[in-house]
Amino acid sequence: MINNRLCSLLGINYPIIQGGMVWVSDWHLASACSKAGILGTLGTGSMTHDQVKSNIDKMNELGAQPFAVNIAMLRDDADEIGKIALERGVKIFITSAGNPANIIPLLKKEGTICIHVVPSIRGAVKAEQAGADAIVCEGYEAGGHNSPYETTTMALVPQVVDAVRVPVVAAGGIADGRGIAAAMALGADGVQMGTRFIATKECNSNDNHKKIIVDAPDTGTCILGRNLNMLRVVRNKFADEMLAAEKEGADKEALLKIIGDEFNRNRAASVEGDMDKGTFQAGQSSGLVKDIVPVEQLIQRLLAEYKETVEELRARS
Amino acid sequence: MINNRLCSLLGINYPIIQGGMVWVSDWHLASACSKAGILGTLGTGSMTHDQVKSNIDKMNELGAQPFAVNIAMLRDDADEIGKIALERGVKIFITSAGNPANIIPLLKKEGTICIHVVPSIRGAVKAEQAGADAIVCEGYEAGGHNSPYETTTMALVPQVVDAVRVPVVAAGGIADGRGIAAAMALGADGVQMGTRFIATKECNSNDNHKKIIVDAPDTGTCILGRNLNMLRVVRNKFADEMLAAEKEGADKEALLKIIGDEFNRNRAASVEGDMDKGTFQAGQSSGLVKDIVPVEQLIQRLLAEYKETVEELRARS
Repeated sequence: MINNRLCSLLGINYPIIQGGMVWVSDWHLASACSKAGILGTLGTGSMTHDQVKSNIDKMNELGAQPFAVNIAMLRDDADEIGKIALERGVKIFITSAGNPANIIPLLKKEGTICIHVVPSIRGAVKAEQAGADAIVCEGYEAGGHNSPYETTTMALVPQVVDAVRVPVVAAGGIADGRGIAAAMALGADGVQMGTRFIATKECNSNDNHKKIIVDAPDTGTCILGRNLNMLRVVRNKFADEMLAAEKEGADKEALLKIIGDEFNRNRAASVEGDMDKGTFQAGQSSGLVKDIVPVEQLIQRLLAEYKETVEELRARS
Repeated sequence: MINNRLCSLLGINYPIIQGGMVWVSDWHLASACSKAGILGTLGTGSMTHDQVKSNIDKMNELGAQPFAVNIAMLRDDADEIGKIALERGVKIFITSAGNPANIIPLLKKEGTICIHVVPSIRGAVKAEQAGADAIVCEGYEAGGHNSPYETTTMALVPQVVDAVRVPVVAAGGIADGRGIAAAMALGADGVQMGTRFIATKECNSNDNHKKIIVDAPDTGTCILGRNLNMLRVVRNKFADEMLAAEKEGADKEALLKIIGDEFNRNRAASVEGDMDKGTFQAGQSSGLVKDIVPVEQLIQRLLAEYKETVEELRARS
């Protein structure tokens, strides 16, 4: 498969990034991904400072393969997470869910590589201006936090590719080699996948999070909190309750009451495996995920599928 | 470019279908598309019976290239439109926006080819069982009527490809050769494009409909009536008014009052060019459309872009 400018930038064998996700991408998944030749990523969104430290220490202990630390800009202590990671020699950062204009210069001053996740051309151009070395361009079909713009991967990627000079990574709706080839056809230099990596042996999530993804049909995810803080999850009892309330025009206060504050619903899903009350973050690509496999086997399968797709495309043309 | 089983089925040179659209796809656009080697389609959703007749007569007069008649299943007189078309020798039908289980057997009894537009695997399987010869699989990014499932082209196409045996046509978010190559990589046998064909010299729409598409940015469309009858349009004064009311939790009655019944907003947009009050139906691919060109020139450009994309993909692999 492709060894392109994204691979050169990141020092990886295949232009695939494992997306940083709350609760389900600690060192177990990230190290397996890095070992398999792609970019593993620690998702720090749900980690305490101590957990960030111990996860990075574990990655460093395990060897020299490149890995990234994902920092969600909506955390008030984003800068501190950055500092903790820099102290431990982290070389690649992926910033998301917010404006990276302040943190990118701080991180780049230490000679690191910075990638920023965006839902629009405007976000991409601003991140490039702030010094981002690559852009992850995430479509509406992606799991987890989502943008009200709702621009999908198919529509967004070629427009961002036309608007910036740095490498562009497509995210959202991709779970097999056909999706990778499609992203490359749209002009992307690589892909970021999240959902597909939850359904791996190495992922530290509760088995129920893996199972709900494998079982989800093509219409199995939805957006919760369209007027609050959009989140794509697999439909379950809680999601249907929220959707019904939103459809009936419930206001912010009423919705926050349904969400409640008795526990963290993301944690309830991914750590406790609470099938009824948890919010199981996942993308529309869940419908394409049919099994739980070791990361190395998944990467080899993706490469084979990608190769087959490109050859078939060539033969049919 | 590809001459595949979709081309053989329809008797066309290139596996591209011009989507049937209300108000903007009469014989002017459909005949130009058929002449250029793709499948031109009369969108009858907005036509009177007399207009359906005269448009088909005009297509027949202009020559023998294959063309299709699109019938929206939400019209009460769908069967009658079918009868009018059959009487005039129409050979290809595209049914959409509803259940085609009753009409497909009626149309196929006369030896015609039937294609049905779906937003889900379930719709695709049911259409295939009803006798559809091909499936158009339309993602959330597409313009006009839209499904509450919201599954996007990137996520939906490979899943539908895996679920049916008939040719699958990808629709939604595609406006250039990169998009066509991406759709083919996902396993589609061809593409349907609508928005891109509005911005052509031959399209009978008001110039303002063409202009609003050319001017739209990547974030320029939105879904109206999420709880009524979802419609993707380019944002304008009316769309923003509706969005604000929906965000505030306006009920069905209040929304219908905003929509009003003084005039047809689709007609106001596409025929009158009313920039403030009209609903300009278009997909997220609007952001990729930068010019208004003759159909023949557009098709040649799409073919060149497609070829270049596939060659580049091959070279990079």
